[in-house]
Amino acid sequence: MLENITGAQLKSMTLKELLALSEEAREKITKTVLKNGGHLSSNLGMVELTVALHYVFDFPEDKIIFDVGHQCYTHKLLSGRYKDFDGLRQKNGISGFPKRSESDYDCYNTGHAGTSVSAALGIAKARDIKGEKFNVIAVIGDGSFNNGLVYEAFNSLKLLNTHILVILNDNGMSISPTVGSMHEYLEILSENAQQQEKKDRHAKIFERFGFKYDGVYDGNDLEQMIAKLTEIKNRLGYESVILHVATKKGKGYAFCEEHPEATHGISIAQTDRIYTEYSSVLGNTLTRLAATDKRITAVTAAMTSSLGLSEFFEKYPERSIDVGICEEHATILCSAMATEGMKPYYAVYSTFLQRSFDEIIIDICSQNLPVTLCIDRAGISGSDGETHQGVFDLSFLGLVPNLTIAVPKDVKEFEKMLEFSVDYNAPLAIRYPRDGRRIFRSAAEFGFGKWEKLISSDDSKYVILACGENALSYSFEAVENLSGQGIGVEVVNARFIKPLDNEMLGSFSGKTIITVEDNVLAGGFGSIIDTYFCNSDTKVKNFAYKDGFISQGNPSVLASEQGVSAKAISDFIIENENR
Amino acid sequence: MLENITGAQLKSMTLKELLALSEEAREKITKTVLKNGGHLSSNLGMVELTVALHYVFDFPEDKIIFDVGHQCYTHKLLSGRYKDFDGLRQKNGISGFPKRSESDYDCYNTGHAGTSVSAALGIAKARDIKGEKFNVIAVIGDGSFNNGLVYEAFNSLKLLNTHILVILNDNGMSISPTVGSMHEYLEILSENAQQQEKKDRHAKIFERFGFKYDGVYDGNDLEQMIAKLTEIKNRLGYESVILHVATKKGKGYAFCEEHPEATHGISIAQTDRIYTEYSSVLGNTLTRLAATDKRITAVTAAMTSSLGLSEFFEKYPERSIDVGICEEHATILCSAMATEGMKPYYAVYSTFLQRSFDEIIIDICSQNLPVTLCIDRAGISGSDGETHQGVFDLSFLGLVPNLTIAVPKDVKEFEKMLEFSVDYNAPLAIRYPRDGRRIFRSAAEFGFGKWEKLISSDDSKYVILACGENALSYSFEAVENLSGQGIGVEVVNARFIKPLDNEMLGSFSGKTIITVEDNVLAGGFGSIIDTYFCNSDTKVKNFAYKDGFISQGNPSVLASEQGVSAKAISDFIIENENR
Repeated sequence: MLENITGAQLKSMTLKELLALSEEAREKITKTVLKNGGHLSSNLGMVELTVALHYVFDFPEDKIIFDVGHQCYTHKLLSGRYKDFDGLRQKNGISGFPKRSESDYDCYNTGHAGTSVSAALGIAKARDIKGEKFNVIAVIGDGSFNNGLVYEAFNSLKLLNTHILVILNDNGMSISPTVGSMHEYLEILSENAQQQEKKDRHAKIFERFGFKYDGVYDGNDLEQMIAKLTEIKNRLGYESVILHVATKKGKGYAFCEEHPEATHGISIAQTDRIYTEYSSVLGNTLTRLAATDKRITAVTAAMTSSLGLSEFFEKYPERSIDVGICEEHATILCSAMATEGMKPYYAVYSTFLQRSFDEIIIDICSQNLPVTLCIDRAGISGSDGETHQGVFDLSFLGLVPNLTIAVPKDVKEFEKMLEFSVDYNAPLAIRYPRDGRRIFRSAAEFGFGKWEKLISSDDSKYVILACGENALSYSFEAVENLSGQGIGVEVVNARFIKPLDNEMLGSFSGKTIITVEDNVLAGGFGSIIDTYFCNSDTKVKNFAYKDGFISQGNPSVLASEQGVSAKAISDFIIENENR
Repeated sequence: MLENITGAQLKSMTLKELLALSEEAREKITKTVLKNGGHLSSNLGMVELTVALHYVFDFPEDKIIFDVGHQCYTHKLLSGRYKDFDGLRQKNGISGFPKRSESDYDCYNTGHAGTSVSAALGIAKARDIKGEKFNVIAVIGDGSFNNGLVYEAFNSLKLLNTHILVILNDNGMSISPTVGSMHEYLEILSENAQQQEKKDRHAKIFERFGFKYDGVYDGNDLEQMIAKLTEIKNRLGYESVILHVATKKGKGYAFCEEHPEATHGISIAQTDRIYTEYSSVLGNTLTRLAATDKRITAVTAAMTSSLGLSEFFEKYPERSIDVGICEEHATILCSAMATEGMKPYYAVYSTFLQRSFDEIIIDICSQNLPVTLCIDRAGISGSDGETHQGVFDLSFLGLVPNLTIAVPKDVKEFEKMLEFSVDYNAPLAIRYPRDGRRIFRSAAEFGFGKWEKLISSDDSKYVILACGENALSYSFEAVENLSGQGIGVEVVNARFIKPLDNEMLGSFSGKTIITVEDNVLAGGFGSIIDTYFCNSDTKVKNFAYKDGFISQGNPSVLASEQGVSAKAISDFIIENENR
């Protein structure tokens, strides 16, 4: 029934048929995610609400924006993408997030939290200016609701003088359980759902911002959702509404209902061998160090377990802070704690660190405070696509004064860097991918600003400067590709991007330098080396990602497409030799 | 009396003496700002409140954080900096903002809006972890109160289980009058100040977040402020308080009271001749273009007039949006309006655009939407110092895929770029300094991605690629310095940073390339050129700002100290000739 469903068909279905359709969607989602990976429990919770939205509203004329966007699977199934759904999150397949390029039904791309209400307001305002008529809906979870952007958007609703529907999808969870006073407040509203007078009194906050508040309803009750949305639809011409619904994360799949955090995102193991994840090294090492160093504090923005910090949080609750999805606030908290002699570690995915850019410059680095940024999922992160790649961090951190940037060659060196960080009294960023796949032998003692030569050659013409585990792996493989050809190639673990190891760099004059990194070319490691040698006779060849967004797929396949691979490196050297 | 005041003396003063001290501070501030420039009206409004704070609390043991920090002048006068006050905002003088490096009384540097509550919470949390006892106070204006960061901080107050005092200094203004629902709400609280029952009912929002609300009091009434702060001080051991005070922006200086927007920041005219300000060209051109193009919309974050958009806002109110100090929200609004076929222009100071970094990547550029960023105060902006320099934008924009970056050589070319932007259907950033000082003749038709050679030479050995008016001025002057020496130097207006003019660049092979820009070296224009030539025989010399924060002073003097000046360029060429 789901396979060829059209909007017209859906609108003529009976409740019983719609319920059957919902079950079919639920099964399709579960089957696909267990095969491809993806967001499971949040999507299972959204099935009935999404079916009701498609039944009541007229997409794509009406517009719907999914906050973060990970919960849009049923929407995709109902908007002509059933056939493509098997390719969910696969290379060249459909995205796990809304994509304008994929369908007219996706009016706004999301990926980072808290943007949906702003986007809905912008679309509604444009509609008003153009004198058009359609409905604009933002669907936002209670986790995203903590983000300051939502407040900024709410604050401007009356000012913009327009009307939207915000559906607050309350399942009590971000990736971690939702925290904060707004969450508490939502719980109060839920508790008083049946007592109109009490609820009205409590719902005042939203009304201050110009919204009519309506809730709490069971978002998994299809019949009730249809009735409620139908009623609200008629009000959107003259007022803005917050519809507060409770949904069950993982609904209909017992394992997910019981383990919503573990089944938020499902990763499908790659065939490649993984030695260990960097996140577990972060967790173990910080937990160990914090036992004797009482200054160490860990701060996260709603991703404690995926960053490896669950044990730390359990052992040192008084020095553990999860502020919810508030990346800017988390950064300033660290900075402020550092002014008082604490040693804060802000652990965060590379892509979400983009949110803290201004605070890294102004709060941490212009004050030269000893905050350590532990940047996970750096480089190409895989199946989440464009909005989740961590390929910009070396560039946007490289320009920030006072910041030291370290990139470990493997998980063991990561541990060393963390140990080093404890007494390092200035801003420090350590960036690393998710997976630790191999351990390189060490060639030189670990020291501040010092690189190490992992492959030496007596008469080398080429020096490969590789930054991080993936780049080093490609470089080692490139040297293997060249073995027996009598070409002298050295490989250096360029583990500090800032400062550079100027002493070692100076010794390479006249050789051909090759840089390899897991980052875009512009402003990245290679570009720093280009600048170092730009007014000399030394030539530099950069292997880094191209100027463009990188969509979903296997990280090493995508890297190769971007021109960063062992073969590309060895081909360059062979070509250069034959010139 | 003010000159040698100590904390102990101040605490033993009578009310009458304190009032006299306040008047003395007011006079000192007025006199100094009218001479040096700076923030006038906000500081005049803060005099009595600051005197009361110093009377009641024990700084520097107690900690005070000023949001944005522009209102800290009385605090500086009362904390041992009277003697240095004549050097306010002067090169090597004291800063117009709080600076940890300047005094123990400044515990946290600010400059961008909305960070104070987060910082206060971080300091208070560190205090609790360490088991220490002192008070932590954030002073925040109603303008900053719109920023999402404040919401993120409030949301975590209970979670952090700590106690702070937030003084909401309500003067009804940011730089522009404060907008938004939170502001409306503050007005309601003010109106009901005398009716306890009504006030209590309305004050609920803050209480949800764990604050006791207390207000509204007259922040210019010294006696009342002392009594109120004394009372609150005793409560801070067990609860957090929001003290809502109304102050009069410009208090005590009739002209300021009547013109709070015009006297928010006072600029003292440089002796250098200014042709016109870029902001007025932005305003005039957009206003003209918008008459026939109904898609054009202007969006600002609380700086409409300083960005030159007052007339636009008056003429096209329906297409004018000032969201208050909500830089991220403003960016997403633009992006969303663009999905609906509008043509949004987000005008913003370079330094504040740092707040929108993630949204530029995810919302504007990953969706490839035709939003134009009009980036004012780019380069070294002068007397506001570290936190206000616009020297990072070429770097953090240069790494963003899909973004075109244009830098006009003068205000006339800026006008051309704005005309060009109207039908350019992709993300575009135009960055420019405040002052337009000269007009260069044009050497080639303006076209997308095309540079122009402004100084040609038949047998040139050197090509200067200059980016923007200041860089071009230095370059022209450098050529003058070299006149008669028979050295062939060409000067190119590199008006597009992205894309590069590859055709013209290719024609320079073998010459010595010199890049000049008003931006840091890392990731900037020069670094892009380094990468372009890195695997060739062509040598490049970069003139750009060093890796460090640039404090206050005259822009061209500071640039020269950073190694970017006409003399540095001509010296390099002469030295290179003599090698």
